[in-house]
Amino acid sequence: MTAVRPRRQAAEPSLHSAFAGRKVIITGGLGFIGSTLAHRLVGLGATVLVVDSLIPEYGGNLFNLRGIESRVTVNIADVRDVYSLRHLVRGQDYLFNLAGQTSHLDSMSDPYTDLEINCRAQLSILETCRKHNARVKIVYASTRQVYGVPDYLPVDERHLVRPVDVNGINKAAGEWYHIVYNNVYGIRACALRLTNTYGPRMRVRDARQTFLGWWIRQLIEGQPIQVYGDGAQRRDFAYVGDVVEACLIAATHEACNGRIFNVGGDSPVSLKDLARLLVDIYGRGSYRVVPFPPDRKAIDIGDYYADDRLFRTHFPWRHTTSLRQGLTKTLAYYEAYGPAYYWNGEEGSAGPRPHARRRLAASSR
Amino acid sequence: MTAVRPRRQAAEPSLHSAFAGRKVIITGGLGFIGSTLAHRLVGLGATVLVVDSLIPEYGGNLFNLRGIESRVTVNIADVRDVYSLRHLVRGQDYLFNLAGQTSHLDSMSDPYTDLEINCRAQLSILETCRKHNARVKIVYASTRQVYGVPDYLPVDERHLVRPVDVNGINKAAGEWYHIVYNNVYGIRACALRLTNTYGPRMRVRDARQTFLGWWIRQLIEGQPIQVYGDGAQRRDFAYVGDVVEACLIAATHEACNGRIFNVGGDSPVSLKDLARLLVDIYGRGSYRVVPFPPDRKAIDIGDYYADDRLFRTHFPWRHTTSLRQGLTKTLAYYEAYGPAYYWNGEEGSAGPRPHARRRLAASSR
Repeated sequence: MTAVRPRRQAAEPSLHSAFAGRKVIITGGLGFIGSTLAHRLVGLGATVLVVDSLIPEYGGNLFNLRGIESRVTVNIADVRDVYSLRHLVRGQDYLFNLAGQTSHLDSMSDPYTDLEINCRAQLSILETCRKHNARVKIVYASTRQVYGVPDYLPVDERHLVRPVDVNGINKAAGEWYHIVYNNVYGIRACALRLTNTYGPRMRVRDARQTFLGWWIRQLIEGQPIQVYGDGAQRRDFAYVGDVVEACLIAATHEACNGRIFNVGGDSPVSLKDLARLLVDIYGRGSYRVVPFPPDRKAIDIGDYYADDRLFRTHFPWRHTTSLRQGLTKTLAYYEAYGPAYYWNGEEGSAGPRPHARRRLAASSR
Repeated sequence: MTAVRPRRQAAEPSLHSAFAGRKVIITGGLGFIGSTLAHRLVGLGATVLVVDSLIPEYGGNLFNLRGIESRVTVNIADVRDVYSLRHLVRGQDYLFNLAGQTSHLDSMSDPYTDLEINCRAQLSILETCRKHNARVKIVYASTRQVYGVPDYLPVDERHLVRPVDVNGINKAAGEWYHIVYNNVYGIRACALRLTNTYGPRMRVRDARQTFLGWWIRQLIEGQPIQVYGDGAQRRDFAYVGDVVEACLIAATHEACNGRIFNVGGDSPVSLKDLARLLVDIYGRGSYRVVPFPPDRKAIDIGDYYADDRLFRTHFPWRHTTSLRQGLTKTLAYYEAYGPAYYWNGEEGSAGPRPHARRRLAASSR
């Protein structure tokens, strides 16, 4: 990602003035969305501190910072680590709070870890801000998973929150902590309920977080894509560049404070059509429709797509990358870097973990 | 409370056959609603195990079991104590899950304890049931606090959950854990969102849990009742006997499984009218309207009253005790027992805590 893209020109001056020279901390900053945000913020002239636990399987990957290694500070720490966070949060102007346990299946097999990361650590981040940096502005990344099985489509923010797994419950609690701390203590915060986000730097190692990443890997490795169910489920997909812009706009607009917004994809597509589109773009490969594994079936939500008009109407944000454009970029990225940096070798491995903040050397992996 | 009350005759035979000889565990069973439930279940012939932590300020009080001391088993344990709970839950037919941190103010000053009790312990109770007693039926006591400031009145179950304090957030998570474990693992569970419950055995020591208890104490002690705000806030109040019947009906109807129901009061009343009614029933005393203390104002929700037609329509439950009747009973109870057992002396004190299940001797306090 570069600092200025022509199609963003309208919002660009204000974003540049909002972030140039400002201090920004990104939790989960070695992950998919966090690292993409780091690239963008570096381009806008911000002083970026990336915090990530590099817990295996969670999506953090040092390679995600390729190209900006010398322009960001990386601190390896877990958001459950109260004392580290206390130090790191001080003096920051913006906090993009993206660290989380994101696997629905893991949240059922180990609900306590999900609770510690998605609830307790969120509380402790907010308590830390309240005590040590009450003027920070926070954007919290929530998920459409909080809605569960939709009563109607597309799902807007008036839809009941009715999660179908422990992860959805804890993410809902996490977003409300932010809203309560905004309303009660004036720690400016808002939450974005993200839909299926995709793009370069997403986790593609397996289907733990998103099936689309796994599909991309299957396609590039010459395996048939496995579509669960009947393939008729409709979903919306948001390109990570668009999601990152939504985060920046939420951060810089005071009218977002204390509010929760959907950030969805451009338009819904059936999973079968998505598989077909991927194969078409890639120019080879195949897909097949297979029954749901039982553990996934139990927490599947069927059709889902978001109504994000509330955010689009009130703030200068829109989808700018079509599904075809986004998938094309994504496939090209993983063709180039996937085998070496995303599905082989130990994820996120970069030698021993440092004890203190440090510059990430370009040679570190 | 006696076993058979004429006004319950229609539901009585089925409740008796449902509970006679059955094993029932009540967490928070020395508290207000839990102990009232224990009295009722003893009357129905159930084998009752009361579990309570007797944490000072939480409302557990051994005196609440006066009259049934020899007919229930009391086990002092904290729901955060995983191993104790594992032992206690085994073999139970019903679990009334009433243990909780209920203070909104405490949840803001110490959000972690609220999280441990209202989230983590709930998860561990459910995990314990899943592994050691998957056939138990659970009724979880939630709260109207999950709704926050109402968009419309009366508030039905279609209203968005939008808590205004950490307690409301964690209670919402707690109820959803129950629903998810019902839906995913088949651990039969439902949740009742209780409104302001009042009656004999409620905590009246201070205004930590409910202002009504505090008012009753003020009245009996000859102090003017302090009504916060302008006194025009309207609320509904549910008599504990009616709430207990709702719990029993929820426990015995399979159609409740996986569902969340409001259980409200008979009809709303303004706080000023409530104070006036109390003074009228008591025959002496006074009230005065005073400004909100700032910590309470920040989490006050204004007018609130529940629409509980969903539960009333589908199940054989209705309000049977008017506000005047209920307040009359409550005042009589605290005139008799308040000074000795509810506002003087160390709350819940009964000497050293036992390490194992034991019969509570009538002489224990």
